[in-house]
Amino acid sequence: MILDNGYVHGGDVYSRRIDLDFSANVNPLGTPEAVKAAVRAAAEQIDRYPDPYCGPLREKLASVNGVKPGEILCGSGAAELIYQFAAVLKPKNVLLPVPSFADYESALEAAGCEPAFYPLRREEGFAVTEEILSAVGADTDAVMLCSPNNPTGRTVERSILLRLLERCRETGTWLFLDECFLELTDEDKAFSLAAYLREGDRVFLLRAFTKAWGMAGVRLGYAVCRHPDLLSAMCRGIQPWNVSSLAQAAGLAALDCPEWPERARRLIRTEKEYLTRELRALGATVLPGAANYLMLSGAPGLYEKLLERGILIRNCRNYRGLAEGDCRIAVRTHEENGSLIAAIREVWHA
Amino acid sequence: MILDNGYVHGGDVYSRRIDLDFSANVNPLGTPEAVKAAVRAAAEQIDRYPDPYCGPLREKLASVNGVKPGEILCGSGAAELIYQFAAVLKPKNVLLPVPSFADYESALEAAGCEPAFYPLRREEGFAVTEEILSAVGADTDAVMLCSPNNPTGRTVERSILLRLLERCRETGTWLFLDECFLELTDEDKAFSLAAYLREGDRVFLLRAFTKAWGMAGVRLGYAVCRHPDLLSAMCRGIQPWNVSSLAQAAGLAALDCPEWPERARRLIRTEKEYLTRELRALGATVLPGAANYLMLSGAPGLYEKLLERGILIRNCRNYRGLAEGDCRIAVRTHEENGSLIAAIREVWHA
Repeated sequence: MILDNGYVHGGDVYSRRIDLDFSANVNPLGTPEAVKAAVRAAAEQIDRYPDPYCGPLREKLASVNGVKPGEILCGSGAAELIYQFAAVLKPKNVLLPVPSFADYESALEAAGCEPAFYPLRREEGFAVTEEILSAVGADTDAVMLCSPNNPTGRTVERSILLRLLERCRETGTWLFLDECFLELTDEDKAFSLAAYLREGDRVFLLRAFTKAWGMAGVRLGYAVCRHPDLLSAMCRGIQPWNVSSLAQAAGLAALDCPEWPERARRLIRTEKEYLTRELRALGATVLPGAANYLMLSGAPGLYEKLLERGILIRNCRNYRGLAEGDCRIAVRTHEENGSLIAAIREVWHA
Repeated sequence: MILDNGYVHGGDVYSRRIDLDFSANVNPLGTPEAVKAAVRAAAEQIDRYPDPYCGPLREKLASVNGVKPGEILCGSGAAELIYQFAAVLKPKNVLLPVPSFADYESALEAAGCEPAFYPLRREEGFAVTEEILSAVGADTDAVMLCSPNNPTGRTVERSILLRLLERCRETGTWLFLDECFLELTDEDKAFSLAAYLREGDRVFLLRAFTKAWGMAGVRLGYAVCRHPDLLSAMCRGIQPWNVSSLAQAAGLAALDCPEWPERARRLIRTEKEYLTRELRALGATVLPGAANYLMLSGAPGLYEKLLERGILIRNCRNYRGLAEGDCRIAVRTHEENGSLIAAIREVWHA
């Protein structure tokens, strides 16, 4: 929860009138009807406490990810697990590539840790390169990576991830890897590290339902982690009933719709090409991102001008390492994207 | 979440066949239809992120409790706030009357604090007496109280609470008061401290929707606290979207049904008399509790025998300060209570 004016994220469609929201990176197809139906059905039994073991859901997630149920930790959204990871590990020396999702830094600060920022370079398209390998030393407690990254949309190349995993094994460093946008990523880049984990690896893979199945309002995320001590310690500090019955039911229904993110992926591929082409034609710099959103640069004032028209995009000015004129837009349906482009065209040279 | 066999609470109807659950202390009338309908309606928009400010809900809660919206902190169930209170305050010297709800101790332990237990006496019916006042000194960082207490059902007398509040003001001690069962408590004992709080008071009042409106599966609780620094610090360590859209919608609908807990209270009063009479006739010791549950003693083996018949009650053996033969039963509808008494009669002398 946020008490007052501290909100820095996308998706705030509550504090003003918004007709079109391009600030939240969720599936442009919305929520599968089966997931909504599961929530409606679960509403009948909400006087019961949720299953504190998240039994059936963890069974299914374990099977999908090729691990044991005891290696899955469910959270009230992936965000809860970010905060708990930092709170429990209290890592002193954390390598944090920036720009990236602001809540890694917030969670570390709440845990009393000042991260060491690792600036990704604009001239390299904010890519994580193999240079990161030499930045991880024996004194590095943790590296916190997001792939595809938010807000850049850039994935970390498979070969670099695997070498980073190896490097972290050598140095005893925790590798926190946020794969929350993976399911909506370009096919050849939708690479999860899950299959490469060994028992005892200090790796914390973060996954979500929010984006792929349009479930941001439900709050359900999970971690894959094959280091039982970390999971036990995290559970000790989390309430027994952190995942609502509604979220558990929604998650089970979502896993029965594996085609939903796949359908969105096809739409996103086409629409991303359309948006990129149109935005570049206007003179914007568009990063070649692999995710269901695009980062553009060179558009100062665009956020404010669109907001006046009831269109919300994500102003990236407050991301560490970014500046005025950097924005992130979600890829939506063709009709919505067309409206966005039309509005941008109108205000671009105004 | 719980990874494996660490669960010690009531309400676990998932890991075995249960026909009748008397272990979870929720409203015997279940959930108001209006609350279920609100959840079903909110299911249509779950692709949106929840309102991180919980704006309309906090407005309404502030008005109900006679405080400002900025003095309300919403949680994913009251339980989330217990853990966050301990994690942020990290109180060293905590006075913890026992028996009481186990998660105070769990939360304190997760925060690295070893509480000082303050044993309530069986011969005094586990009542909190004015003796507690002299146990609070200048070196007491916090007192954690539950009224009505779980599992005893005993409330702390109004006059003692007010003197304790005064004492805590003198000593700079945090008063954590769990009022989660208040709405279902006997009328004259349903006394909230909310109206007595001054700005800057180190008091953290915990409230829930779980029990009064039968919403355990949804996860919604809140705190009333007029100490802005604590609330800010707690928010920094909690994710922005801890309260789902479904929970916010359910909470607003519940507040529109103030008669629901009131109806339940009338039922509970009658049924508690019935249960008490029948149990005492069998020779059990029944505490004169003010809540929607009863604690009985002198019933060794009862839990196991009822479980064999598909009836779940709360075995209180693992509560600090209690012993084999101590049990807690929720007050349910007359039909359910009748089935329970019939089953207890059968097994009592078996």
